[in-house]
Amino acid sequence: MKLVSAQDFDLRREVEYGSPEQNEAVKEIVQAIKMEGDTALLRYTEKFDGMKLEASGLRVTKEELQAAYDVVEPSFVTAIQAAAANIRAFHTRQKRNSWMDLQPDGSLLGQIIRPLKRVGVYVPGGKAAYPSSVLMNVIPAQVAGVPEIVMVTPPATGGRAGIDPYILVAAAEAGVHEIYRVGGAQAIAALAYGTDTIRPVDKICGPGNIYVALAKREVYGVVDIDSIAGPSEIAVLADDSANPAYVAADLLSQAEHDEMASAILVTPSEAFAKACQAEVERQLAALPRKAIAGASIERYGAIILVDSVEAGIDVVNQLAPEHFELIVENPMGYLGRVENAGAIFLGPYSSEPVGDYFAGPNHIIPTNGTARFSSPVDVDDFIKKSSVIYYSKDALLENGATIMELARREGLEGHARAIEVRLQQEGKAGNEHG
Amino acid sequence: MKLVSAQDFDLRREVEYGSPEQNEAVKEIVQAIKMEGDTALLRYTEKFDGMKLEASGLRVTKEELQAAYDVVEPSFVTAIQAAAANIRAFHTRQKRNSWMDLQPDGSLLGQIIRPLKRVGVYVPGGKAAYPSSVLMNVIPAQVAGVPEIVMVTPPATGGRAGIDPYILVAAAEAGVHEIYRVGGAQAIAALAYGTDTIRPVDKICGPGNIYVALAKREVYGVVDIDSIAGPSEIAVLADDSANPAYVAADLLSQAEHDEMASAILVTPSEAFAKACQAEVERQLAALPRKAIAGASIERYGAIILVDSVEAGIDVVNQLAPEHFELIVENPMGYLGRVENAGAIFLGPYSSEPVGDYFAGPNHIIPTNGTARFSSPVDVDDFIKKSSVIYYSKDALLENGATIMELARREGLEGHARAIEVRLQQEGKAGNEHG
Repeated sequence: MKLVSAQDFDLRREVEYGSPEQNEAVKEIVQAIKMEGDTALLRYTEKFDGMKLEASGLRVTKEELQAAYDVVEPSFVTAIQAAAANIRAFHTRQKRNSWMDLQPDGSLLGQIIRPLKRVGVYVPGGKAAYPSSVLMNVIPAQVAGVPEIVMVTPPATGGRAGIDPYILVAAAEAGVHEIYRVGGAQAIAALAYGTDTIRPVDKICGPGNIYVALAKREVYGVVDIDSIAGPSEIAVLADDSANPAYVAADLLSQAEHDEMASAILVTPSEAFAKACQAEVERQLAALPRKAIAGASIERYGAIILVDSVEAGIDVVNQLAPEHFELIVENPMGYLGRVENAGAIFLGPYSSEPVGDYFAGPNHIIPTNGTARFSSPVDVDDFIKKSSVIYYSKDALLENGATIMELARREGLEGHARAIEVRLQQEGKAGNEHG
Repeated sequence: MKLVSAQDFDLRREVEYGSPEQNEAVKEIVQAIKMEGDTALLRYTEKFDGMKLEASGLRVTKEELQAAYDVVEPSFVTAIQAAAANIRAFHTRQKRNSWMDLQPDGSLLGQIIRPLKRVGVYVPGGKAAYPSSVLMNVIPAQVAGVPEIVMVTPPATGGRAGIDPYILVAAAEAGVHEIYRVGGAQAIAALAYGTDTIRPVDKICGPGNIYVALAKREVYGVVDIDSIAGPSEIAVLADDSANPAYVAADLLSQAEHDEMASAILVTPSEAFAKACQAEVERQLAALPRKAIAGASIERYGAIILVDSVEAGIDVVNQLAPEHFELIVENPMGYLGRVENAGAIFLGPYSSEPVGDYFAGPNHIIPTNGTARFSSPVDVDDFIKKSSVIYYSKDALLENGATIMELARREGLEGHARAIEVRLQQEGKAGNEHG
């Protein structure tokens, strides 16, 4: 793991937007689903997933869901239930009420907060199918009160209709209402435009490969989409009070995600930097995913030496990392200085996996420096707001002339007249105020 | 104004994304600003706005701002101050606190809510410069606590350095901190990448022409952007208790915006429909912008007859209009049924211009059916959230085994080991729990 100076380091990486051929292929698939519905959906499922289905076989049945519980270990069910309960509790604290403001003149202003009506969650197939991601995408929607949560996930390729039982159990525990065995760009298009079998949704979220990402971009506007995540990142700011073995393990847990992942240590202590460097080497050698983690550490890993913990925080604010561990004496005393970080882990026992799986906050967090302006997934991502204005006659008579002046200043006479016609008929002509 | 059935009506319209030539031109401008900074910014300002400036002349001075107050009518200043106070009051009610949840085991979970650091607001030049839009874009950012709000607006073309004094007064009253006389794609690029004169921002908002819209799309990811608004819309649901003259005036106030604007009346009363139709004709003839309003009514206006107010609400929910006026007896009794509408105006005195200019809620509202999943601009658009996890030793010892089980189920052994190394060293090996 290389030592670098803060000035020489730039975490930002180019985001992959797909080749022209991939873009073209996705446009064609989306168009076909829009025009042909289920017919195209079944055709692409046979083509890409190697599975010949009828429309009636797309939806996962209650019996299949029950069968999944019979396959997985009881300890897994208990673990997923405990995680789901924590995630639900944390997100429940984010819920907001509609509100209104009653004025003495009888007017009422307010904001109505409602859940989205129908949400689609994409879950990748194969090795990228993570039960924890199902919880993190679905539970905020469920807590928001979304009455229809739909999951799509590709069937195992090669003609098996099965879906990973761990994914099915996680979906059931999180509160998914409908599950369909479709994947890829065709699943995204089906969620956006609807088919005879799958009714359209208002928002699509969840990770996927490049075809899924491009399809989400293609249908954006017809439906809402979540943001497209870049490679995962961690920055750890640690001083001599930290245990190098803990910090090294946390850096490696990030690095094992994929070769593009980034693990960065920021420290004011050269002794700690060296101890940590040695621990990373030692632990990496024994890691099952050492090829991936090693490549990540080699390319995107770094140790940045700084003058003080405060200077380290400045570096972290520049990086705006997805995950930030602050393992120093009295970490709480520095929290107010942390401006840009998606999730902040404080102290020696708040290892990142605690948040990835269990504690309650969401693990879908802005990457690639976007924590400067965006936020982890939460209940707000599954609500919509409407403004409400009930203006009383008194309020209109009182303020009508001011409103007309502002409208006329912008050359919008029709706007002024919508007020004037009322002032005239309610017995108070506009020009008495003008 | 034509009568149509609900089934035959579709409000959705294709959104303009610019020609390939416009896209190409914008990419070139953005790239030039990114590479050359102020040099390119001054070159494009001369080319597109016909104004030769030095870098030191880009920023609007305090003296210019003061001079604007000497030009505008005192009644305008009073009106803009009253509107600003209402908008500020409404948005202040949306502010949220950071929060934390303290657990009996000593753990702490929470969400930190912070304003964005620096926000750029684009204000179009010429006739599209609306002081009310300045208030509606800037005040939510100011209420959120954004410490640096930057406005850019093109100078008058043809070598005059001046900016509309009404815009300057609105900016000052809203709380803008810096103003630069630059516009177009070059202004957006300068805000996103920064130049020697204009430091980069975290988010860009505000309306603009097609070049501005394309530039915002181009820099999205480097900074956050607001959504791109489509043509404005109103749907009015009125029964026989409504005054046809009021409703017609409200429909026309929307139609006068632009030829693409849409004004729709939904009513259960054929008599009211006919009376309103006649009123629209009568009032349209006397409207200064009758060419625009007439074209809008002709192309996108409609009266939809329904069986009942409830059936009318169903139609409105399908339309998901930007503005919705509900002018029926006891409008409050129907509010709970309104699922999709950006802003809801209740009763005879809540004419849309009340909300456009004055009452307090934002007038930047989702268009083109996107109220199904998005919301008016508010304080939430100018904040970012960070999750906080402080896990206690007790909490880790208690839950470590569960976290390891979930990590290993996903094949992420490095995640499990980050927990295990702690359990081992803190005197409780992972396998005692496994």
